[in-house]
Amino acid sequence: MKIEAVDFFYLSMPEVTTEADGSQDALLVRVAAGGHIGWGECEASPLVSIASFVCPMSHGVCRPVGASVLGQSIDVPQDIARIAAEVAYNSMDLLQAAHTFSGVEMALWDLLGKVRGEPVWRLLGYNASYKKTPYASQLFGDTPHETYQGAVRARKDGFRAVKFGWGPIGRGRIEDDAEHFQAAREGLGSDGILLVDVGQIWGEDVEAAAARLPALEAAGAVWLEEPFHASALEAYGELSRRSGTVKIAGGEGAHNISMARHLIDYGGVGFIQIDCGRIGGIGPAKKVADYAAARNVTFVNHTFTSHLALSASLQPYAGLADHKICEFPFAPKPVAHAFTANILQRDSNGEIAAPDAPGLGIDIDRQGIRKYLVDVEIKVSGRTLYATPEPA
Amino acid sequence: MKIEAVDFFYLSMPEVTTEADGSQDALLVRVAAGGHIGWGECEASPLVSIASFVCPMSHGVCRPVGASVLGQSIDVPQDIARIAAEVAYNSMDLLQAAHTFSGVEMALWDLLGKVRGEPVWRLLGYNASYKKTPYASQLFGDTPHETYQGAVRARKDGFRAVKFGWGPIGRGRIEDDAEHFQAAREGLGSDGILLVDVGQIWGEDVEAAAARLPALEAAGAVWLEEPFHASALEAYGELSRRSGTVKIAGGEGAHNISMARHLIDYGGVGFIQIDCGRIGGIGPAKKVADYAAARNVTFVNHTFTSHLALSASLQPYAGLADHKICEFPFAPKPVAHAFTANILQRDSNGEIAAPDAPGLGIDIDRQGIRKYLVDVEIKVSGRTLYATPEPA
Repeated sequence: MKIEAVDFFYLSMPEVTTEADGSQDALLVRVAAGGHIGWGECEASPLVSIASFVCPMSHGVCRPVGASVLGQSIDVPQDIARIAAEVAYNSMDLLQAAHTFSGVEMALWDLLGKVRGEPVWRLLGYNASYKKTPYASQLFGDTPHETYQGAVRARKDGFRAVKFGWGPIGRGRIEDDAEHFQAAREGLGSDGILLVDVGQIWGEDVEAAAARLPALEAAGAVWLEEPFHASALEAYGELSRRSGTVKIAGGEGAHNISMARHLIDYGGVGFIQIDCGRIGGIGPAKKVADYAAARNVTFVNHTFTSHLALSASLQPYAGLADHKICEFPFAPKPVAHAFTANILQRDSNGEIAAPDAPGLGIDIDRQGIRKYLVDVEIKVSGRTLYATPEPA
Repeated sequence: MKIEAVDFFYLSMPEVTTEADGSQDALLVRVAAGGHIGWGECEASPLVSIASFVCPMSHGVCRPVGASVLGQSIDVPQDIARIAAEVAYNSMDLLQAAHTFSGVEMALWDLLGKVRGEPVWRLLGYNASYKKTPYASQLFGDTPHETYQGAVRARKDGFRAVKFGWGPIGRGRIEDDAEHFQAAREGLGSDGILLVDVGQIWGEDVEAAAARLPALEAAGAVWLEEPFHASALEAYGELSRRSGTVKIAGGEGAHNISMARHLIDYGGVGFIQIDCGRIGGIGPAKKVADYAAARNVTFVNHTFTSHLALSASLQPYAGLADHKICEFPFAPKPVAHAFTANILQRDSNGEIAAPDAPGLGIDIDRQGIRKYLVDVEIKVSGRTLYATPEPA
């Protein structure tokens, strides 16, 4: 089959706010080859990712992503890796390329799985898709009481694991942060799994992070996520050596395999969190899962958006029975649910699994696309390089 | 002063080819504050970098670069670092942001220098701008004889140091590569400084790189540049431990300080090459220069484009007398010279220095801008987010 077309759909809530909620917009990718269709989703800025697919070439290794994708043949999984390598080389000076290609790569797996009637995890070499324990991902409240209420709500909704993120943590006194951690624990109950995400708040300041460790340990937090800049390997390494029972988690910012490997090897993380919509897709995420599993590091997906992205993010570690925890978009904005016709349902134990269905196992709702579709036009030298396509 | 406007000018040769020549287009940035003007230049894809300045916000930490720049106050150098930190945090999920902000940051230094009547290197804390030995940066020939001729031409043109890059190296037999290295040495003469750049050709394949070390050593090459992917720290580290008299060089792909630091600490490079148009501008590059100097690693600029970019790239290490070598665009495309009214002239010894003139010391030629200006329009939801501005 030849890749005949790659179409991007920029969807957005009518109003986007400054809250740290990545489900406010989406960039959906449709790939067509040999009369078949596959769907994927890029994380982060839709307009910029579209631009890096269609931009004019700057020179031999700053080519648009499209130049290395369109017209390629795709028949076996190895073709996806070959195309990925071409993108990496031909677009080495185009920083945004990894984010753009991530959604394309997912769509290629989805397409190949549909053609073969196999779930993607099977194409990756797994024999089973093991159940995962989803954690409800939500923001800390403005007050400890709000955090408490969030925890109670999540438990009532059947979640045993909850992750609280961002909000006031790291912006005020250590004692105030401790109250939030305790409130979360109280709301969760003693058997709940508590995870804490601070969204790079401390930059490279190891002491500021370490000062919160006793309170995190007292609240029984399993991990402290993204204390530092995605690239601050030295800070990660130092905190990991001091963090005791609280493991350090990170990796969502990884836009290539090396970055994830370095967080494991130099940063000493106990949990490596990979967003398939950023790292270059499902193939590189699978390589990270293999690397982590061989080193006693737990692989976790990073997903804050749709169930298309969720299914994609589960594939790389679907077959790793011991890597049990998974991020689950708890309260995404309506746009994130609008464009899929089905979602991953939790079973009676509150668990989910990568679907046992061809491709990613997620159907697309074209009416939902239409409802949130953003009209974009990019013209260079009088030529239209991109205009929002028809979803039908 | 308040930052009132930031304008981007996308310039390009009428035809862009797949050769590894980064001077085929340019993204010029003009910043206006308090009635003053500063100029800077971003490296790599102009369209994508423009998009990341004007794109709609996706969420709180995926904001357009413009949101953290426009309206900011700029009076002292510390303001530039403050704005840079805001961009890094507010756009942490926008991969292209570092490339975009790099040109803006340069322009802020240029503006501040002009306001104070001081060269940027003085604002950075240096007391002198030391002479540098420029190397003529050119591509390997298709044949060893062409490589030889290139070396002869560069020497005739007064260059003692020459860097050959890309071309056939690493694509064929080791013996063929060795012939190119020897031809370069013959053309340069025994006292010439020979530098070799292979543009990431070996990915992470340490053995393929190591197999060329004897020939490089025999030809007296000072450095082997970018043998691997920008992020392949392990491969860099292993090759560095085996490279003997040939030092490993790299760093042009660094889009933050951490990446450069890791190439030094984990990758063991002997030369760290920083492109101010990618790493976030002059401020972060100066921090890398300090870090390198303290560790006996030599700082080198990476510049393949205009003399505005060249002046900017010299500032971070202008005051480091021992860091003597510098990249000099030997045969850039006409667009790279068209938009500056002056260039950095080599003196009678063939040396250059960061100008002793306010700001970056480079004047802009608006007629030159006009000649190569690319017409761009970006519309989202019916609103024009970007239209090519008037250079006058």
